Amino acid sequence: MWAIIGTWHFSLQAIEAFAPRLAAGDGAMDTAVAAARMIEDDERVDSVGRGGIPNAQGECELDAAVMEGRALRIGAVAGFCHCPNPILAARALVDHAEYNLLCGVGADAFARSLGLPQQPILTEAALARWQQLRQQRQDKGHDTVCFLALSADARMAVAVTTSGMSLKLPGRVGDSPLVGSGFYADDEVGAAAATGLGEDIMKGVVSFRAVEAMRQGLSPRQAAEQAVRETHLRLVRGGHKPDNIAMVCLDKYGNFGAAANHREFAYAAAREGLAPALYPVEPVIDNQATALPRELQGLAGS
Amino acid sequence: MWAIIGTWHFSLQAIEAFAPRLAAGDGAMDTAVAAARMIEDDERVDSVGRGGIPNAQGECELDAAVMEGRALRIGAVAGFCHCPNPILAARALVDHAEYNLLCGVGADAFARSLGLPQQPILTEAALARWQQLRQQRQDKGHDTVCFLALSADARMAVAVTTSGMSLKLPGRVGDSPLVGSGFYADDEVGAAAATGLGEDIMKGVVSFRAVEAMRQGLSPRQAAEQAVRETHLRLVRGGHKPDNIAMVCLDKYGNFGAAANHREFAYAAAREGLAPALYPVEPVIDNQATALPRELQGLAGS
Repeated sequence: MWAIIGTWHFSLQAIEAFAPRLAAGDGAMDTAVAAARMIEDDERVDSVGRGGIPNAQGECELDAAVMEGRALRIGAVAGFCHCPNPILAARALVDHAEYNLLCGVGADAFARSLGLPQQPILTEAALARWQQLRQQRQDKGHDTVCFLALSADARMAVAVTTSGMSLKLPGRVGDSPLVGSGFYADDEVGAAAATGLGEDIMKGVVSFRAVEAMRQGLSPRQAAEQAVRETHLRLVRGGHKPDNIAMVCLDKYGNFGAAANHREFAYAAAREGLAPALYPVEPVIDNQATALPRELQGLAGS
Repeated sequence: MWAIIGTWHFSLQAIEAFAPRLAAGDGAMDTAVAAARMIEDDERVDSVGRGGIPNAQGECELDAAVMEGRALRIGAVAGFCHCPNPILAARALVDHAEYNLLCGVGADAFARSLGLPQQPILTEAALARWQQLRQQRQDKGHDTVCFLALSADARMAVAVTTSGMSLKLPGRVGDSPLVGSGFYADDEVGAAAATGLGEDIMKGVVSFRAVEAMRQGLSPRQAAEQAVRETHLRLVRGGHKPDNIAMVCLDKYGNFGAAANHREFAYAAAREGLAPALYPVEPVIDNQATALPRELQGLAGS
């Protein structure tokens, strides 16, 4: 069995491109990284790689991570500024093995030492959108690209890449390069990755939470729904209104699923015997609902 | 009930200083942060704050984090270079609320905007030790300072601070500022924090894992032992020899415990009715053992 699942509608093009390669025997990590790189290189996608919307000072700071599920090796970079393909630096760290996460100028120096192309990340279109958003004093959402892959040799991998929250404070790191929050993969169980407001995703450590739920026997969809729902409800109990949280899950058998606490999320997937397709996601709980969630109505005032 | 637990023998001085304040009604977060700051300011401790051993280029890069267990608010900084008290910047981020984690120059800029004192971190003693370690081509261990506190008003908090792996590649970030790996706190259950090789701790997301185990009913000691043991054994199954992993846990009732996969770890603790004391920790599994762990002997070759 092979399978691949990616966040948001724009991952469909990469799944169409790389599903045949998985079917032909390509490895999970190579495929997840190649798919993520394809979206990084697509300037039309303004939340990742080249074309990503910059931070408050007009500088692009990219975050990315890769994890493989056999030995749980991790590679991640944060605050990556001089190369539009942070996923390639993250992949190199997995192979490098000694370090899991590099940030800031150290991450950029590592990329230079690898000979990764140092190219401008900012495009004219992203700069124009940045100016517009800045005038409106709003950010544009948090559409992290995540791919989970299972290859025919029963190996699993996850690749995530993002330009982070638009107009963010320089140095801000979200969930994407943080293991357990933005991503997790374990060949013995499955893999998960998240997209949404990183600050809220981190509070629930949602990716590890979902993989542990699959370990307990839940299906990928049930695990994603439980992780999103538990995190959402816990934040409500703590007096915090949750922002957008969405996630995708894939188990070691090739079953996949997703969950979100809002109405915008969709994902793309393909697996052996199932052609690439886009799947909308109905919210498991709605962060725009004005009434207290049913589960909490008995707790009012507690 | 109030309680406080800290990693390593050097946390005892801070627990002796701040346990009376918890008894007098100080809050969990204020206490955990004050205790961590006291160790940051102690130049004799060469793994944290002023006096910490620098990276491969001779520059100190500090990491720290704070989490509070009511609304799961997080503040963390990584690659913090110009102020010996990263825990104060982390604490300010908790109150700031919009961002959880800042890295590199952005973190330093945030510290300056707070008016935190910009002082040299490197001491002559740390520089001498760095030169010695560099000649010997070895690092010196990973003695992260972690405090978990429970205050009389049933609030919990965790504070962690470290100078990270000595001689590390510039930009390297370990588990300490990463939620779920280096720390986690939830007033509904308990809190946990880790010390050891960050790269291995991150693979097991050990702090969140331990808090979830307490949620399932395990005691703090059982939860710590399960988290260390599961992570250690999973790494062995993946073909990786685990480095040092140790952790402390505290539940919402004031019970505490710890676990390690090596013989060096000790912690200090105090709680209502129990004077500050140092506790050695017997390894739950030994990463220096040459034989395959008993649990894996049947799996050889799998």
